[in-house]
Amino acid sequence: MKKTAIVGATGIVGQQFLAALNNHPWLEITTLAASVRSAGKKYKEALLDPKTQALHWYVEKDPPAEFLDMEVENAANLDPSKFDVIFTAIESDQAKTLEPKFAKESPVISTASAFRYDSDIPIIIPGINSDHISLLDIQRKKRRWDGFIIPIPNCTTTGLAISLKPIKDTFGLRSVIMTSMQAVSGAGRSPGVGALDITDNVIPFIPNEEQKVQEETRKILGVLGDGCVEPANFNISCTCTRVNVLDGHTESVFASTKEKCSVKGIKETLEKYTGILKDARLPSSPKKLIVVQKDPYRPQPRLDRDAYGGMATTVGRIRVDDVLKNGVKYLLVTHNTKMGAAKGAVLLSELLIKKGYI
Amino acid sequence: MKKTAIVGATGIVGQQFLAALNNHPWLEITTLAASVRSAGKKYKEALLDPKTQALHWYVEKDPPAEFLDMEVENAANLDPSKFDVIFTAIESDQAKTLEPKFAKESPVISTASAFRYDSDIPIIIPGINSDHISLLDIQRKKRRWDGFIIPIPNCTTTGLAISLKPIKDTFGLRSVIMTSMQAVSGAGRSPGVGALDITDNVIPFIPNEEQKVQEETRKILGVLGDGCVEPANFNISCTCTRVNVLDGHTESVFASTKEKCSVKGIKETLEKYTGILKDARLPSSPKKLIVVQKDPYRPQPRLDRDAYGGMATTVGRIRVDDVLKNGVKYLLVTHNTKMGAAKGAVLLSELLIKKGYI
Amino acid sequence: MKKTAIVGATGIVGQQFLAALNNHPWLEITTLAASVRSAGKKYKEALLDPKTQALHWYVEKDPPAEFLDMEVENAANLDPSKFDVIFTAIESDQAKTLEPKFAKESPVISTASAFRYDSDIPIIIPGINSDHISLLDIQRKKRRWDGFIIPIPNCTTTGLAISLKPIKDTFGLRSVIMTSMQAVSGAGRSPGVGALDITDNVIPFIPNEEQKVQEETRKILGVLGDGCVEPANFNISCTCTRVNVLDGHTESVFASTKEKCSVKGIKETLEKYTGILKDARLPSSPKKLIVVQKDPYRPQPRLDRDAYGGMATTVGRIRVDDVLKNGVKYLLVTHNTKMGAAKGAVLLSELLIKKGYI
Amino acid sequence: MKKTAIVGATGIVGQQFLAALNNHPWLEITTLAASVRSAGKKYKEALLDPKTQALHWYVEKDPPAEFLDMEVENAANLDPSKFDVIFTAIESDQAKTLEPKFAKESPVISTASAFRYDSDIPIIIPGINSDHISLLDIQRKKRRWDGFIIPIPNCTTTGLAISLKPIKDTFGLRSVIMTSMQAVSGAGRSPGVGALDITDNVIPFIPNEEQKVQEETRKILGVLGDGCVEPANFNISCTCTRVNVLDGHTESVFASTKEKCSVKGIKETLEKYTGILKDARLPSSPKKLIVVQKDPYRPQPRLDRDAYGGMATTVGRIRVDDVLKNGVKYLLVTHNTKMGAAKGAVLLSELLIKKGYI
Repeated sequence: MKKTAIVGATGIVGQQFLAALNNHPWLEITTLAASVRSAGKKYKEALLDPKTQALHWYVEKDPPAEFLDMEVENAANLDPSKFDVIFTAIESDQAKTLEPKFAKESPVISTASAFRYDSDIPIIIPGINSDHISLLDIQRKKRRWDGFIIPIPNCTTTGLAISLKPIKDTFGLRSVIMTSMQAVSGAGRSPGVGALDITDNVIPFIPNEEQKVQEETRKILGVLGDGCVEPANFNISCTCTRVNVLDGHTESVFASTKEKCSVKGIKETLEKYTGILKDARLPSSPKKLIVVQKDPYRPQPRLDRDAYGGMATTVGRIRVDDVLKNGVKYLLVTHNTKMGAAKGAVLLSELLIKKGYI
Repeated sequence: MKKTAIVGATGIVGQQFLAALNNHPWLEITTLAASVRSAGKKYKEALLDPKTQALHWYVEKDPPAEFLDMEVENAANLDPSKFDVIFTAIESDQAKTLEPKFAKESPVISTASAFRYDSDIPIIIPGINSDHISLLDIQRKKRRWDGFIIPIPNCTTTGLAISLKPIKDTFGLRSVIMTSMQAVSGAGRSPGVGALDITDNVIPFIPNEEQKVQEETRKILGVLGDGCVEPANFNISCTCTRVNVLDGHTESVFASTKEKCSVKGIKETLEKYTGILKDARLPSSPKKLIVVQKDPYRPQPRLDRDAYGGMATTVGRIRVDDVLKNGVKYLLVTHNTKMGAAKGAVLLSELLIKKGYI
Repeated sequence: MKKTAIVGATGIVGQQFLAALNNHPWLEITTLAASVRSAGKKYKEALLDPKTQALHWYVEKDPPAEFLDMEVENAANLDPSKFDVIFTAIESDQAKTLEPKFAKESPVISTASAFRYDSDIPIIIPGINSDHISLLDIQRKKRRWDGFIIPIPNCTTTGLAISLKPIKDTFGLRSVIMTSMQAVSGAGRSPGVGALDITDNVIPFIPNEEQKVQEETRKILGVLGDGCVEPANFNISCTCTRVNVLDGHTESVFASTKEKCSVKGIKETLEKYTGILKDARLPSSPKKLIVVQKDPYRPQPRLDRDAYGGMATTVGRIRVDDVLKNGVKYLLVTHNTKMGAAKGAVLLSELLIKKGYI
Repeated sequence: MKKTAIVGATGIVGQQFLAALNNHPWLEITTLAASVRSAGKKYKEALLDPKTQALHWYVEKDPPAEFLDMEVENAANLDPSKFDVIFTAIESDQAKTLEPKFAKESPVISTASAFRYDSDIPIIIPGINSDHISLLDIQRKKRRWDGFIIPIPNCTTTGLAISLKPIKDTFGLRSVIMTSMQAVSGAGRSPGVGALDITDNVIPFIPNEEQKVQEETRKILGVLGDGCVEPANFNISCTCTRVNVLDGHTESVFASTKEKCSVKGIKETLEKYTGILKDARLPSSPKKLIVVQKDPYRPQPRLDRDAYGGMATTVGRIRVDDVLKNGVKYLLVTHNTKMGAAKGAVLLSELLIKKGYI
């Protein structure tokens, strides 16, 4: 069993890590860490509102009993050498300080955006660009780290990159235009999206989101170059909005391919895509990375977000687009807090174990 | 005062006509007509659920008292010669039969899609393509009608065409990609959108909507040709979705212009656009057709749908798009049941009165 | 394996029966029946919208593959003698005709209200009033039926009666005042509750609901008398409302007990209540019928409706009430479409099998 | 014109004061005050998010232009002698310090709960217990203040007390049981109710709310005694919940009267109730304090909250209750941020001006 620390364990993503790692066959949580405010308390006390006795636990199922009595450590004082892997679920500015400190000694799998855009840091979606993992060797050498930092992408990037990968492989990709309708859980909990803001409403702006999705998608679909990932050479333009949905991002995609493609061809290429996952058989890998929905009223976030445990991206309404050259348009739904966050990071850790990096 | 009939007076759009025409300075409702089921009843009885005594009235304010005791006529037996203008708020298949019958003798302003795509039928948004009204002369001659049929567009077309018009006039328009997030009131009442379908959800499909918006936008922004409207020669591709919003359609637009344009240039051309409305001063015309929002979190449907009485389209987040040639992207909000339905039809009737067609 | 028919198999409750009986150890669905409109079609064709190709399936998981190709029978022509048990999921007026016809030859477990208030028809919640089942012997004799009709209660009654049972047993019950906040799924699908009605809203009226809950609760908590159930002799007054929740009814209860009771006493009596279920060990019986929540912000429908597979009622905020004599007040959440509908009916069938009635 | 200060002007209630006092015939806002964070800035700058340029303005209409350039003062340094009246829209703990300081020199109308339960502080709803205002004379004498503190009630108390007043006057009141379904706007903005908490959900607990409503209702409906208000001698028990509604509290009331009452009698007494408002003709007083809805599906918060400008309480579904002695039950809707907050406070100020206290 790999010794595992969760940093940011009291937050919503940290809690999802606890849920995702409960009874995991390869990974064992040995330390929960958080900010100084929670440090020294039992985990269950750190979650308890002292005034109201309400338990601030936000994941579907009740918190796993085995973690409730663990003492929360101060993340700032964590000794990284005690762990085989450290998952971080913290804000980007904290990540900037803490993650390099941890990475000197241990592998760090990060949900933060702090290091995603560094040239020697790969952003990995297992089954989509697993080959980029070898960039870690260069990262370690260059930074003189025993460990490394490997981030997962922004939750809006995940489904988009997954759906584009087989299209790019088969037909080539010239350009992408995407409008997202994102779930409120993507904005976290403190304070999160207010009911007064999103009820009977759409919020047409999410700070920095569009740039992140644009840059990350090209990086993930790029090729390994000389000590860095060469971003894929398609153009991409996004508009990101928030809608009144709890979980599950919906994305309306218009893509232009290099070679002529048909609706039937796109469907087939998406349906038969397996990535490397068919070989790897990891504990968290879904049977399918991509589900193609035939019902014209699908994908819908409430009905499709949990496909294959929230680890598959559902694509539907694949049609010809007349504006772009060799244009195709479709909609997708992807679970932003499962494949797009903690469960996706756990899947990545499994792949890294398989490949010997952890 | 122009003698006015509302056909389909008991439905939700019919009710909005009653609200919009209450105390109107030029138009006087002299007849309410509906299906045989309501015919012969007082209007208030036609709205009353016999079992529960609930009043099926769906408009913000209470029903105008003066209409409550009017007897509802059978639309199938309406004598059109008694009216200066007939507003129809009926399903497309009924419109196919009834509207030509009415138009033989009287002007018909229609909210149905039945005749929108006929070559001699203009689709009018006052202030955007008011000059297309002269096609009515050809329509009358060709069809040997004393009256005419003049439809307003689909409620999703309205805001899109309004926002594109000044851009097209100033920079030329090469292509448009649009994803809509439409309000549930656009689907009407019987049965309308179910709470079980849209709560915590997005529905990615609205039958026929995309084709309508694509065809209508090009027709409205087209030029009068020889006995027909020559559709504008830009490409357009839409994806229409339904979100959990009561009123107000949000649209994410990516447009390519013929000439080079800047964000500043687009803003200015939208801000200064007045259409013909500045000259016409009609009772229902808003002071502005287009509002440009500077707040990056706007437009939001709940906050912006009622701008200028629900008659203005609000545009925001105008940015450069890198995918399309001379690309610009923005979001807009437009009120689907006000400017996009009854109030828009009333504004059109006012313009037709001003121009002598009614 | 008991041969089982689902009557009303295409509706939302019928679909829930299919889900609940999928891979059931004792029951095997051998026939799906529905109205003449669906009769003769394959089940999957009956669910398919011919125009849009949308599949009208409303249950969480995809429809069990084994049923998709079964031919739907016309319910009106069903031969009841071919079944060990018939579950009905139909409207009350259809139930009035069909259920007695079926009951002449076979056991009928009904989700309709048609026969709930007949003196020789027990309304059963397993574990709460299982002893009332023996009324079936009288029913059969009196009506000269080989089978019988046994209904489950209204979904709003279920949780209320469950929570009151241990209180009544321990402290006696003098009176009950209840205000419900009911989920939209309780209103079914055709047409169901419209998003335009319930978004940003509460609907303070559900026809006939209050009378049903009042009468059923007293009947369920009553005692077997001479050929009938003697209703329990407490007063009960309800106000039933609909709120913007998908699944899970919330009820605010104020109760007056005969003997003095304390908050602690009520908690203990609720916590230790097991009904007969601890002995029976039925396939669908939850480990707990009642969960007592200590978090003052619970029970919440979204968090608690699925407790023990949607088969447990969660009670919280137990406090003293000063208005009623020996007053206690609390809130409860119960799953209206699981324990309150198909899954509750399946549990009842299991109890009837155990007791030899099926 | 009375010189008026708004303390807490940047918050949501403060903003509602600005909207309510815009173009007021008797009151002129001469100072906007807030915490030190906003002090010294122009009002529009204090509302502007420096990072995103979003304007934090939460009231229906755009902020009145005349206030945008006013400099915000530090509430802690406010000189109360410069104002005829000070409205406070601040948290209770700040109110505890600031309000007595202000009241030494000037009238303070408070929306906070800090002083509501002091014996010499009346809680006033104009038209319901306006006579309690004379307690201010005693308050001033006792506290040696030139000004005074006069709070409005909690927004959930308002509608309840208004609906009970005519019932109590006519039939006497023995006891009240109430379950509220409260809107999210009642919880304010920072952080307010999260979409993740209330979507598809009910929250069954609002800290301290039940005690407040119970105590305030009895105080408001009490009689002036010797230097204090003698609380009315009925019992009252409440359960307060939060539902997914933006504005407008719904309350399910069960009441027991001293004398026998009929549904007809209750309706009539509610319908004809005018309070003192019929005589007073104040600028903000609604034509009706109470609207009796005949539609059994009403009152609904979205349809009824804005009755008479959000200043009237709408009552419906008046029925006999069989549990309580002389029992009656009904539902009401009241606008929590209009009559229940700033607009209610402005109405109170008008009454105080009329009576010579300001």
